[in-house]
Amino acid sequence: MYKTLTGREPAEAILSDAKRRAQALGRSAGLAIVLVGSDPASELYVKKKLEKAASAGVNARLEKLPETATESEVLRLVKSLNRDTSIDGFIVQAPLPKQIDPIRVLEAIEPGKDVDGWTSANLGKLAAGMADALLPATPLGVMKMLEFHGAELRGKHAVVIGRSNVVGKPLALLLLAKDATVTICHSKTQNLAQHTKSADILIAAAGVPNLVKADMVKSGAFVIDVGTTRVGGKTQGDVDFPAVIKKANCSPVPGGVGPLTVAILISNVIEAASRRP
Amino acid sequence: MYKTLTGREPAEAILSDAKRRAQALGRSAGLAIVLVGSDPASELYVKKKLEKAASAGVNARLEKLPETATESEVLRLVKSLNRDTSIDGFIVQAPLPKQIDPIRVLEAIEPGKDVDGWTSANLGKLAAGMADALLPATPLGVMKMLEFHGAELRGKHAVVIGRSNVVGKPLALLLLAKDATVTICHSKTQNLAQHTKSADILIAAAGVPNLVKADMVKSGAFVIDVGTTRVGGKTQGDVDFPAVIKKANCSPVPGGVGPLTVAILISNVIEAASRRP
Repeated sequence: MYKTLTGREPAEAILSDAKRRAQALGRSAGLAIVLVGSDPASELYVKKKLEKAASAGVNARLEKLPETATESEVLRLVKSLNRDTSIDGFIVQAPLPKQIDPIRVLEAIEPGKDVDGWTSANLGKLAAGMADALLPATPLGVMKMLEFHGAELRGKHAVVIGRSNVVGKPLALLLLAKDATVTICHSKTQNLAQHTKSADILIAAAGVPNLVKADMVKSGAFVIDVGTTRVGGKTQGDVDFPAVIKKANCSPVPGGVGPLTVAILISNVIEAASRRP
Repeated sequence: MYKTLTGREPAEAILSDAKRRAQALGRSAGLAIVLVGSDPASELYVKKKLEKAASAGVNARLEKLPETATESEVLRLVKSLNRDTSIDGFIVQAPLPKQIDPIRVLEAIEPGKDVDGWTSANLGKLAAGMADALLPATPLGVMKMLEFHGAELRGKHAVVIGRSNVVGKPLALLLLAKDATVTICHSKTQNLAQHTKSADILIAAAGVPNLVKADMVKSGAFVIDVGTTRVGGKTQGDVDFPAVIKKANCSPVPGGVGPLTVAILISNVIEAASRRP
């Protein structure tokens, strides 16, 4: 009766649109991914991103540094990628080894090449409503998901649980730009259920498995689960999906927002390429 | 029974703190105000800012351009102020004549000298929680007002009516950083009263006189009125003060947030000066 909000179809729509824009470029776009160390999960993500990018016609290359790399070595690489004319956009895969300040590395990325959209420069452009912002993948994925599945936003109450710089805050700003009334909840929120119960759109990005129960959800709402917590070898979302899907439209984990994020990374690379002079 | 939240005392506290920090600098801080044209209200504001700055020991100077100035003339002045080592911070007084794009001028200001805190760079730093953000005067004034009058924020529900880049959005981010649960309402919000009624902290920044009536306010809340609409030669806030003050703590207009903004501009100039190498 209610929709399972899967990510595969909107992801395919984004990818085919990106391929169309890539062809219009008249050249191949260039992506680099910086990987420091050899965290197995990171290696897997990076491999997936490189493969997807290549299959979309993007020149994608890996820039690998050892686990023992110093901050200045990473910064030197970032600066050389900023200058590298064959690279339209690049990302530094998180997490970084602990001897490296992730904010200092992030902020060193040229905003026009920041295809993760995580620099404060792009967050500020997003907040200010500037057209040249590069937008972060997960929040933009949620917006594409809502759009694809026909959720109305204008004047509606959207509640975001989570206030990270890469998900909660940019997502709140994107929902606001679409004329939703936006509430941002987090770990210090009193009476979480009181807020979520009035949400027409509910986004769970807290990283707390099973946080959102059916009795916290308004009937007929759109619930998007951004949680991805590893529990006993399995990825778990923030939403009690089997119960919530009986009264509201809900995205599953896995299979929900996940597939969208790589598609948006590729779309951002094409976007960055098409803006370069 | 409820407090009238006046701005004079917190403004004095900010100014005397700024003077103390100015002395620690060991030199005079330099402020420039760019005024394009001769709008009487703007001339009055600028005069007040220059006088207050001078009385706080800041070297304040006016940079005046004619109403007919071109955008490139204004941009040239901005760039020269960016380079001018005698200037620690500067602002371009709004509004600008219509032949000039205000965003292009604003974004040309060096973020470290942007003492209005209006550039997307500073908005992004604020959103990302970076310590080197220069914060906009009115939102920071509201925060100082709440702090001065003892409003608790952590875990409380704060509702902001208005989503401008210079008031509503930065204010929402500042409240969020103080652990409030934050709802942002605006002209497209359905059932405004439903949101405001549950607000422990209510900030009205819509620019709609008399928008907030007593029956929309929770008993005992802190209500800050940021509205300043000129109606028949008088400045009117967004809040029905005589009725609201009977059931909640409320700031008046005029005499509320207004006096804080100039104090914060001066404080920002000292802050910018103390950060310069």
